Amino acid sequence: VAADDPGRVLVPTEEDRAAAPPGLRVEVWTGDGEPGGDLGDVTFYVAPYNRPDGITVIPRLTGLKAIQVLTAGYEQVQPLLPDGVSLYNAAGLHDASTAEMALALILAAQREVPEWAVDQRDGVWHRHFTRSLAGSRVLLVGYGGIGQAIEARLLPFEVEVTRLAGHARPDQQVHGVGELAALLPQADIVVLAVPETGATRGLIGAGELALLPDDALLVNVGRGSAVDQAALIAERGRIRAALDVLEKEPPPPGDPVWRAPGVFFSPHIGGGSATFVPRARRFVAEQLRRWAAGEPLLNPVDK
Amino acid sequence: VAADDPGRVLVPTEEDRAAAPPGLRVEVWTGDGEPGGDLGDVTFYVAPYNRPDGITVIPRLTGLKAIQVLTAGYEQVQPLLPDGVSLYNAAGLHDASTAEMALALILAAQREVPEWAVDQRDGVWHRHFTRSLAGSRVLLVGYGGIGQAIEARLLPFEVEVTRLAGHARPDQQVHGVGELAALLPQADIVVLAVPETGATRGLIGAGELALLPDDALLVNVGRGSAVDQAALIAERGRIRAALDVLEKEPPPPGDPVWRAPGVFFSPHIGGGSATFVPRARRFVAEQLRRWAAGEPLLNPVDK
Repeated sequence: VAADDPGRVLVPTEEDRAAAPPGLRVEVWTGDGEPGGDLGDVTFYVAPYNRPDGITVIPRLTGLKAIQVLTAGYEQVQPLLPDGVSLYNAAGLHDASTAEMALALILAAQREVPEWAVDQRDGVWHRHFTRSLAGSRVLLVGYGGIGQAIEARLLPFEVEVTRLAGHARPDQQVHGVGELAALLPQADIVVLAVPETGATRGLIGAGELALLPDDALLVNVGRGSAVDQAALIAERGRIRAALDVLEKEPPPPGDPVWRAPGVFFSPHIGGGSATFVPRARRFVAEQLRRWAAGEPLLNPVDK
Repeated sequence: VAADDPGRVLVPTEEDRAAAPPGLRVEVWTGDGEPGGDLGDVTFYVAPYNRPDGITVIPRLTGLKAIQVLTAGYEQVQPLLPDGVSLYNAAGLHDASTAEMALALILAAQREVPEWAVDQRDGVWHRHFTRSLAGSRVLLVGYGGIGQAIEARLLPFEVEVTRLAGHARPDQQVHGVGELAALLPQADIVVLAVPETGATRGLIGAGELALLPDDALLVNVGRGSAVDQAALIAERGRIRAALDVLEKEPPPPGDPVWRAPGVFFSPHIGGGSATFVPRARRFVAEQLRRWAAGEPLLNPVDK
């Protein structure tokens, strides 16, 4: 790409193209098949949401100056980015969707929704008391946008929320990760809402799980790598889990997570709900406007 | 029972007896087997929660002056009560438990928890976008204690709540039931939290369901009689439902509700969760104190 050539922009949907400012050369690639035209003239690439080919195409975009991912996490893109290419994420766009999935998982586990669903399918009526969310002590691990959105939705349920993040923030009553071991024994429910980083990989291992009281619930809406899944499976029956993310997605056939008692999972759909779509379109439109105007884009991330 | 005989009190748990004031003659009957002693000298009866024999014993309590049920609804007791026997319900005790079940059902339906549970059991990974709760228009039918508790839990989810009750309360922005037909076409989610009364039986029939937009969700945590279940089944595929209460509990084998697409149910456990237990024990202790002291009991209901 010549230095004075603004190049092409690749966006994932027709709505994104329709919302682009006039004068910008914008084409749509949904992540299916091959992107059209000379890939070397793509300067700004908005990767399609959750399409593996959307990532693997990156090394072929040899003129790339900036890439926008529509996920909050970006650990899968980092290794593919040459120096000098700016990376932007979608922090904030998934907060509402992911937070409501966290509540869906917590409530489903406490009130046995997965069990009732299987009972209904099997023609079984097995009425009995369940656990409740009310009265529970919740340890919220991760206090970024998603963590704060989870907390806002949790508070009316008559729970006691304790906040923990990588670094203590005394002014917000957020404990630092060094206090994790001290806080786990007092948690009925632990909710993980942390990105994948060197600091969060294996955050909840055998030692941490052993500190949880009997019948505690572990909820994960961040990244599967935060939990040592084999250690969790080893605690099945004593600790319950409701997971939107797993170490391997999908888990291999025969993996014990498919059938572990008290372990429920959904297929990584925390961010993937209807409310994401209009938010993503509004966000991409704003990024395209900034790109065309030469203004700084929103949500730059350190690679 | 002689006029000056305070008689016996029957309570459902040992904790209730232990909490009774000294001097009161209190015995435990859990609802299993036969109550002990002369049933004619029971003047105050605290019926065990959700035990059918707890209701059928009532006609044999010939000296009864007052009966306490631990449910909010009391339609099953009314036909058995002689004149002069006072009836007290447990309004308020189930609010937190039932409201959190309403949210569990709403979130489960929007985020497909029952489907993921069955997929997990079947070894299927079928990742796809789901509906969201955020951005939904919720029509809340019933604005008593449970309805208000549901609303408090719903509001942080970025929804628009419209309130409806038997009678309009303009000062609280509560619409009257006469506006139901006008409001249904604007509802993505309808939540029923009404008791069983002459006015609520069949409240949602074929005509009301037909007014709902495609893909609307009907949630019921009140009483099954509020919904014409055959009409709901006829709308399966167009309208979704998440029901904690049904017309017949359990539904007969072969009833289409067991397998209707988009219709999920739990076995009437809205009020039946762990958080109810300490609330019930505190409440019974207070009623026993009032009974012994000759003070008016809490929660009298019109028969």
